[in-house]
Amino acid sequence: MPQDAWRIDNTPRAGSSEVLCDVEALNIDSASFRQLCESNGYDAVRIGERVLEIVGQRGKQHNPVTGSGGMFVGHVAEIGKELQGSNGLAVGDRIASLVSLTLTPLQIDEVLSVEIATGRIRVRGKAILFQSGLWARIPHDLDEGVALAVLDVAGAPAQVRRLCLPGATIAVVGADGKSGLLSCAAAKVRVGPEGRVIGIVPDDSSPGAQLLRQERLVDALVVADARNALEASARVAALAPDLCDVVVNCVNVAGTELASILCAREGGVVYFFSMCTSFTAAALGAEGAGRDVTMIIGNGYTKGHADIALQTLRENPALFAYFNETYATRKTA
Amino acid sequence: MPQDAWRIDNTPRAGSSEVLCDVEALNIDSASFRQLCESNGYDAVRIGERVLEIVGQRGKQHNPVTGSGGMFVGHVAEIGKELQGSNGLAVGDRIASLVSLTLTPLQIDEVLSVEIATGRIRVRGKAILFQSGLWARIPHDLDEGVALAVLDVAGAPAQVRRLCLPGATIAVVGADGKSGLLSCAAAKVRVGPEGRVIGIVPDDSSPGAQLLRQERLVDALVVADARNALEASARVAALAPDLCDVVVNCVNVAGTELASILCAREGGVVYFFSMCTSFTAAALGAEGAGRDVTMIIGNGYTKGHADIALQTLRENPALFAYFNETYATRKTA
Repeated sequence: MPQDAWRIDNTPRAGSSEVLCDVEALNIDSASFRQLCESNGYDAVRIGERVLEIVGQRGKQHNPVTGSGGMFVGHVAEIGKELQGSNGLAVGDRIASLVSLTLTPLQIDEVLSVEIATGRIRVRGKAILFQSGLWARIPHDLDEGVALAVLDVAGAPAQVRRLCLPGATIAVVGADGKSGLLSCAAAKVRVGPEGRVIGIVPDDSSPGAQLLRQERLVDALVVADARNALEASARVAALAPDLCDVVVNCVNVAGTELASILCAREGGVVYFFSMCTSFTAAALGAEGAGRDVTMIIGNGYTKGHADIALQTLRENPALFAYFNETYATRKTA
Repeated sequence: MPQDAWRIDNTPRAGSSEVLCDVEALNIDSASFRQLCESNGYDAVRIGERVLEIVGQRGKQHNPVTGSGGMFVGHVAEIGKELQGSNGLAVGDRIASLVSLTLTPLQIDEVLSVEIATGRIRVRGKAILFQSGLWARIPHDLDEGVALAVLDVAGAPAQVRRLCLPGATIAVVGADGKSGLLSCAAAKVRVGPEGRVIGIVPDDSSPGAQLLRQERLVDALVVADARNALEASARVAALAPDLCDVVVNCVNVAGTELASILCAREGGVVYFFSMCTSFTAAALGAEGAGRDVTMIIGNGYTKGHADIALQTLRENPALFAYFNETYATRKTA
């Protein structure tokens, strides 16, 4: 499998069941980009050289330290024979890849710029999408940076829509981040007026928390450190004595598994979207607490997830404005 | 929380909502016991001294290296006032704890013996079960070693019963171990004559694999190394071209997440009972493969799981005989 392989063949030519793309930009995943920044003194030139080196050695942007990748943006250059007319793509379409760069054959001709603030690297290059490779067309009316920010966490609102039922009580742990905001918005629509969405944030002065409150994307905001399981779950229990039907974990720190479990009612669901989740902490936490909950590993891929995530954004003008302010591509003169 | 705490109060006295037990034996979990053996030269006396030291320092058998515990067997000595007549226990009842020793207050007066082959340590001591603490009465007609072996993996057959539907196709990865055997037996009953259970084992000469085949606890046995995702899933696909509705992962090695995912059909369920599961390998594996499956973190606790596991064993005389041969307490003269 291309993810397991140290090096993959990155010859820029589309096989009969492949799509060749002209790559404009890489969106490096945040764990990988932080590592690249730290080991290269936050120097844009050195980071660019290191990315060229990794892709030269491995045939893909697969950070050997963090094991993670990212996604790319580009145009369709060539469509393999078997796929022509059948996969909904046309040459020239502007797309974002939704599969990890850790398994995407990539060749970089030139690094044009490295944007330290966003982990975005503009390049000239070519990439291959396999038949099973996932992609999303970038909508014409959406800024590309915004589209990428949404597509990056598209699994979260799609799963929320699937798991939450009308009238349900939902908690979103880490509600003020990118995936948390979209999860709250998706949950609010889904549970309806009889349901309730509780956001848990470490600090209610963050821009995300303020947006949640002002735009009523949650019914209640709980300020608590989710690493303190007893305190955080007690605050949620004070608002919802029967606890929550579904708990969505969107945090970016470790150690919040038990709080998430304790917020869920017997028979409820805990959805771990955070990549900081520890399998054993979740498994042993639920056993130790004697809580019969279904714990789900966040799957970055859900059928129709890209459309659902973009729709969630469009349905919420204030959220749309916030994403535009926060993630729109910075134009350089 | 007692699991997080380095040291807990182990005063042997039952609070009003607690149960005090006379402890006969500790069943150290296998990761912890291997570490204790290796760091003490497989010397029973030294291992016993080390356990005394850990419990003396921490108030619980919480291995500081592996972070894991085990369970205990004993008799009910005292029942707190609030629980009398309400929790189904009577003084003198023989029980096994179903919560981890990492959160169970324990005092050891004497270590009587350490059995290297099984990780079983006979002691004289006292332990406290909290109101929420889980326990199972040890059936009179069952050898205690057998009961413990079954209770240790009780979550697996209980979850299998919940997830598998009549007529479904099920794969059990690591079918020949303790949890795998019970999962196959539970799945076989549940899916019925229209359904199918496929066992995946690394080697079909193991006693467990032979039992599966002879007693028809599986409809088909696939011999494959589940760390090779493509090969293992291709063999399953050859038997079940529509792939599996539910895949249960019971292996004790790392790196089998992708094989498990690829054996599941679109919309299917992968249940990770193995504590070797990596959260990120599962999450990124499903995303990379573009497979829309629900991945569940094995919860050691499920309502009624102890009874379901024991019932699964009783319903299968050959499996019962195998567990007796393999796990019955070795009587010493």
